[in-house]
Amino acid sequence: MYKVYGDILSGNCYKIKLLMQFLQVEHEWIHVDILASETHSEEFKAMNPNTKIPVMEFDDGRYLWESNAILNYLAEGTAFLPSESFERAKVLQWQFFEQYSHEPYIATARYINKYLGSPKAREAEYHSLQDGGHKALSIMEHHLSQNTYFLGINPTIADLSLYAYTHVADEGGFDLSEYNSIRRWFKDFESLPGYLKMDRENA
Amino acid sequence: MYKVYGDILSGNCYKIKLLMQFLQVEHEWIHVDILASETHSEEFKAMNPNTKIPVMEFDDGRYLWESNAILNYLAEGTAFLPSESFERAKVLQWQFFEQYSHEPYIATARYINKYLGSPKAREAEYHSLQDGGHKALSIMEHHLSQNTYFLGINPTIADLSLYAYTHVADEGGFDLSEYNSIRRWFKDFESLPGYLKMDRENA
Repeated sequence: MYKVYGDILSGNCYKIKLLMQFLQVEHEWIHVDILASETHSEEFKAMNPNTKIPVMEFDDGRYLWESNAILNYLAEGTAFLPSESFERAKVLQWQFFEQYSHEPYIATARYINKYLGSPKAREAEYHSLQDGGHKALSIMEHHLSQNTYFLGINPTIADLSLYAYTHVADEGGFDLSEYNSIRRWFKDFESLPGYLKMDRENA
Repeated sequence: MYKVYGDILSGNCYKIKLLMQFLQVEHEWIHVDILASETHSEEFKAMNPNTKIPVMEFDDGRYLWESNAILNYLAEGTAFLPSESFERAKVLQWQFFEQYSHEPYIATARYINKYLGSPKAREAEYHSLQDGGHKALSIMEHHLSQNTYFLGINPTIADLSLYAYTHVADEGGFDLSEYNSIRRWFKDFESLPGYLKMDRENA
């Protein structure tokens, strides 16, 4: 049985929880408190030297980190990851977009606001993140105005990766009321069988 | 024949050039000048709304962006991408590490220094990137002290992704003289048949 080290309130960890729920993958969830620096212990660093959650542990003691790598591993052979090569590359395209052009703005603004309580020292940084976040949201909005899900009519792990932090973007100060297609996509995604809210009680 | 829109002096574009050279993939290279804002034209945005290079165009007019997604597409079925599922996930793990924990520090510091000529306005940012860059380099150094390449004895696209900006990290102010395993890995990587230097003449 897999062990997952994470915090379900982190979008990157929530991705793994959601996919495991969709696919009914049995696992043990081990809560890690990042504010208490638990990712910086020697024990944790032996699992992931990059001191980040989530980490997935296999029965034989192997470890895998980076949320989107874990998603690709778990989704292989399921409807959440297409088998056709161009579609697979498009899934990765959106996941790399998420990690480089979306998460560093939207998740970081949310972290400063929700986790750190908007300290004065990070106010300028917080404001500087808004433009980049809205650029990412606009690209998503345009794409979703023409497609049900990122790869077309069926949901894939590309949607999962982008849903995780987008659906709580308001906690980073991003007003989503003008993003009609994103909000339509939320509804479709949230009606998928097995959907689970980002809530510590669901971890 | 593929068309690639990029600048070979950008590590993300160089990755594509290198793999195409290793695999002898015929292609046309179209130089894009990011400093002249060529990625912000309406024509370019129709290819990639995220206004970034590289972009790969297919014969039938489809586009693929995000360097590591392109690498995975091109490497499928070759020795540069393993077929075993855990190894494939490990390739992705290192590629997501590269885009989130390596490139934003090392490539950005290099960009400020080499492309922008270290303007005063970005001096504080430049210095703030050094710690994150050295953290990424230390993780690589430790891993390469125990493995020939990132996935073991054979080179994969994980090496390609990490080599691209690491081998020019000095241009971002990162002194590599203490990273003995990284320098050993450079030598091994640079002796692979088909290896090409990051040089505009090679584009």
